[in-house]
Amino acid sequence: MLNHFCKKPLWECHRTLIEVAQGKRPAECVLRDAKLVSVTTHEVLEHADIALAEGRVAYIGICGHTADHCIGPDTLVYDLKGAYVAPGFMDGHIHVESAMVGPSQYARAVVPHGTTAIMWDPHEAMNVGGVAALKELIKDSKRVPLKCMVTPGSCVPAVPGFEDTGAAIGVDDIREMMGWDEVVGLGEMMNDPGVLGCADLPLGEIEETLKAGKTVTGHFTMGDTDCALEAYIASGVSCCHESVTREEALQKLRFGQYAQFREGSAWHNLEELSHAITERTIDTRFVNLVSDDNHPETLVSEGHVDRLLRKAVACGIDPISALQMVTINVAQCFGIASDMGSVTPGKCADLVVFTSLGSFDVQATFIDGELVAEDGRALFDPEPYAWPEELGHSMHVGLSITPETFRIPARTQDGTVLPDGEALVRVITSAGGSTLTKEEHLTVPVEGGCLLAMPEKDILKAFVFERHHATGNHAAGFAKGFGIHGALAQTVAHDAHNLLVVGDNDADMALAAQTLIACGGGEVAVADGQILGKVELPLLGIMSPRPVEEVAEEVATVEDAWSKMGCTMPSPFMTMGLLSLACIPELRLTDRGYVDCCTYRFVPLIVENEV
Amino acid sequence: MLNHFCKKPLWECHRTLIEVAQGKRPAECVLRDAKLVSVTTHEVLEHADIALAEGRVAYIGICGHTADHCIGPDTLVYDLKGAYVAPGFMDGHIHVESAMVGPSQYARAVVPHGTTAIMWDPHEAMNVGGVAALKELIKDSKRVPLKCMVTPGSCVPAVPGFEDTGAAIGVDDIREMMGWDEVVGLGEMMNDPGVLGCADLPLGEIEETLKAGKTVTGHFTMGDTDCALEAYIASGVSCCHESVTREEALQKLRFGQYAQFREGSAWHNLEELSHAITERTIDTRFVNLVSDDNHPETLVSEGHVDRLLRKAVACGIDPISALQMVTINVAQCFGIASDMGSVTPGKCADLVVFTSLGSFDVQATFIDGELVAEDGRALFDPEPYAWPEELGHSMHVGLSITPETFRIPARTQDGTVLPDGEALVRVITSAGGSTLTKEEHLTVPVEGGCLLAMPEKDILKAFVFERHHATGNHAAGFAKGFGIHGALAQTVAHDAHNLLVVGDNDADMALAAQTLIACGGGEVAVADGQILGKVELPLLGIMSPRPVEEVAEEVATVEDAWSKMGCTMPSPFMTMGLLSLACIPELRLTDRGYVDCCTYRFVPLIVENEV
Repeated sequence: MLNHFCKKPLWECHRTLIEVAQGKRPAECVLRDAKLVSVTTHEVLEHADIALAEGRVAYIGICGHTADHCIGPDTLVYDLKGAYVAPGFMDGHIHVESAMVGPSQYARAVVPHGTTAIMWDPHEAMNVGGVAALKELIKDSKRVPLKCMVTPGSCVPAVPGFEDTGAAIGVDDIREMMGWDEVVGLGEMMNDPGVLGCADLPLGEIEETLKAGKTVTGHFTMGDTDCALEAYIASGVSCCHESVTREEALQKLRFGQYAQFREGSAWHNLEELSHAITERTIDTRFVNLVSDDNHPETLVSEGHVDRLLRKAVACGIDPISALQMVTINVAQCFGIASDMGSVTPGKCADLVVFTSLGSFDVQATFIDGELVAEDGRALFDPEPYAWPEELGHSMHVGLSITPETFRIPARTQDGTVLPDGEALVRVITSAGGSTLTKEEHLTVPVEGGCLLAMPEKDILKAFVFERHHATGNHAAGFAKGFGIHGALAQTVAHDAHNLLVVGDNDADMALAAQTLIACGGGEVAVADGQILGKVELPLLGIMSPRPVEEVAEEVATVEDAWSKMGCTMPSPFMTMGLLSLACIPELRLTDRGYVDCCTYRFVPLIVENEV
Repeated sequence: MLNHFCKKPLWECHRTLIEVAQGKRPAECVLRDAKLVSVTTHEVLEHADIALAEGRVAYIGICGHTADHCIGPDTLVYDLKGAYVAPGFMDGHIHVESAMVGPSQYARAVVPHGTTAIMWDPHEAMNVGGVAALKELIKDSKRVPLKCMVTPGSCVPAVPGFEDTGAAIGVDDIREMMGWDEVVGLGEMMNDPGVLGCADLPLGEIEETLKAGKTVTGHFTMGDTDCALEAYIASGVSCCHESVTREEALQKLRFGQYAQFREGSAWHNLEELSHAITERTIDTRFVNLVSDDNHPETLVSEGHVDRLLRKAVACGIDPISALQMVTINVAQCFGIASDMGSVTPGKCADLVVFTSLGSFDVQATFIDGELVAEDGRALFDPEPYAWPEELGHSMHVGLSITPETFRIPARTQDGTVLPDGEALVRVITSAGGSTLTKEEHLTVPVEGGCLLAMPEKDILKAFVFERHHATGNHAAGFAKGFGIHGALAQTVAHDAHNLLVVGDNDADMALAAQTLIACGGGEVAVADGQILGKVELPLLGIMSPRPVEEVAEEVATVEDAWSKMGCTMPSPFMTMGLLSLACIPELRLTDRGYVDCCTYRFVPLIVENEV
């Protein structure tokens, strides 16, 4: 039973509910004639009335009973005329920062789509600003009705020793945060090799979370569906959103782990994963639907959890089962089902009204008994949050970037500079819609002691610059899969959020980098000396203080630019942003160099001694 | 996550599990070639291996994988040759005292039937001996592997002001006990009228339980499936075992309450309730199977939770769904699914081995990774518990009982003594297999200023004597439905456990009462001056310190006696014991008189002014 994320703890208001249910006291609000989706029994209950008081459900009138006895002169009565009512949608794993806005603006975007609670892993903000930044973000989140439940980042840095971040989180930090009311679990445990190796940091963080009776969320990317996965689960990680094959997802369910089927803006796993349950008749109570990362324009144009539901139904998942996967199943996963996840007496009155079980076209959203969004618009609009000065100035590159900065010396491990000709180099190959990358060994030209890009073969230069402590650290590599002419830069680059630049020529790359340094971070697309699109994200270099709609428009201009520059990927900036994410196979580039993310060691740019 | 009811908290042993799963360290025990019942996915996984360490599951080998890599020279290996393995069975609502033994002897009886955990409401012992008695019982329970999870009695007395008990429990007691590791919830909240009336005691107890994050168990007997039930649920009561119709059970599920389908020795509700789920296709995750009260001979001859499973399957419930109802569903109901309820990595190694999904013929039981029962026999046999002196001397009647004690004055409310002839009286009518009674108004003879029994119409005298504080309080009434000649007495009588005597003649009734006073309590059947059967229960007057098999044999002699005396009820002593249970409709007799259990007021024996 929670004593937060609700208007009042149940024990402080159950007297009122008891009286309202019996008609001894009027309800504050009654919803009439709903098709109530019962997620506890997997049914639709026709002609249901729902009486609310103290932010909770006091009574539901079903099977011919009405809530007439709960209506007094001051009771707000809504006639739903047969619309569906379901429990408020919950996203069991989301990084708000991917939407490039702070939590209050995020809430304005998602609540109209029926989202009433999120399990938010703020590890992006924490990589830049640590616990101090998280405290500010939580303060902002408390100004809106969306229930922003926090699972603090467990892997900050994502892969210690392989990258430089703005902050680092230790076991003591986790112990402290597990005592916070806003914290419902531990953020995704991406250090799966550390867990399997019984490293002190990840196991210590898991220990503090379990001791606090909270949920350890996972991120297991090894592809293994046997020993390694089971060892990972046995450590105490009880849910995971990183399945990419149906077999992985199915095994997680069999191993008692909540399998969070993901469908983000860029990572499209739901269709494949849906086969895990549609190909057989199994219990789906351990399945959640989550979005992980949503670009702002996805939220604005496609929606949030409602979008997941539509996709699930399109994949052949029964619509009520799909609704369970974003309500009661999530609540059970996080141990909060006694307070939310179903529209039943005593639970928080977090409700979504929609007119079709297939399209989930949300008409209205109630949180804690209040109508908070209607007809696609949030009914709340807080003042801009007064972010502390330091959160708005996070670009500290410590290096004067010019076109020359982007020359890549053709130097082998022993210091030899290669003669003009060709060199075999490691290239990170990305594919749209996937978080995984491939390591390819390809030939690039060597000219004047430098390795060159090969735009004609889509082999671009990639650079990562440390931007938190002005160390000047930076490293170079090659990237394939983006197919552009020009340069792209961003500071969203996961998870260290250093300055990442990709391009086919040094001049555009320098302009892109300089542009972001000047504006405090964000995303930019440059070609032939022109800025084709830009999103300014001055808040920690990853978020904008402006409304999500405006940010989405800017992002659209950047994506248009990508398209004009030749890229055909969906959400390409998001896929580009993973070039530096050193916790997912196979090859990544951090400010310290290339990381082999299967063996966790640095590997050189030039491939030597390969037969 | 529990830090008790397991060998070690997960965070103290996950390093070992991680290593065992990966084959870096040998398992303590491996079960080979099982048909593993996956209650998380509702499947049977063929040819499964299960590796155990530190009392938990480290690894399961499925889909062609074996646990060979977990086997070292000292690993105990059991070849199950295709037998089924399911998670240990849990009984989500049970009164150990009904088995007439203490918890360690109870464990010896039920663990061989696959029971690994019970949610034990010890309100019977607490009505006699209060918190002090409970502490002793818990000490006894800790000497056996069975996980005796306590839900302390919430209604002691069951109906305050209507009966005299040995002890009374208040909100302060509940607050204290909610801090105990052994306590997982609040015992059945039988004061449903008090809850609906917002009385301080029941709501205060619920508040303390919710604040502790524990589960409030229910007992709602009003038959209502609308306002009253919803008000009761909105108070915070999250499970209830008192459904008698399929409609009640179904509505509880729809209202988000765990419906605990009961099948006790005397209360046979499962067949009727099973229709709630077999007549439609609904999610059954909120269904539990519970036994509530089991006579010792039921445990010895028919089993415990395995018996519920067989009955469920006989009622048309799918066998894997039935297994979920005694494993994962119970664990989720009590918020302990992160530690038990499934055979998955990291969970306690509480396992049951059986050879058929229909007969659930338990071959072996493991608790915390140890083989604790095999071939129907417990592998543990603790020394008799050294019960404190005061728990063995609880008969304090404060009255010298003779045949004259059983004369019932034919006196009306205003003191008028009726002349010889007839009188209309209230009679409690019981039916075998039901906890409910009916109030009937029947005519009995008046002779010499006294009301007489009418054995020829099965109208027997009933007396309840206060036995805790030697007050001499007693009251008289009439009982129908037992059909015996002679007298029956017992101190098990719920829930005050006063001395209850029923009979058709005063001499046998006196002998029965005197016999129990002399032996410290128990059950006795007397006819024509002869003791036909007796069970001595000197421990609080409700339990025996001897093994359950011996008690079961004695109970069998008493039941034989009942049968010879003319009674055809199943478990008749148990049904008789509810004559005094003033928290269930319609009419009951306590030491203070007749209680109308629908309106909660005392009603007179003689019906006056009835047209």
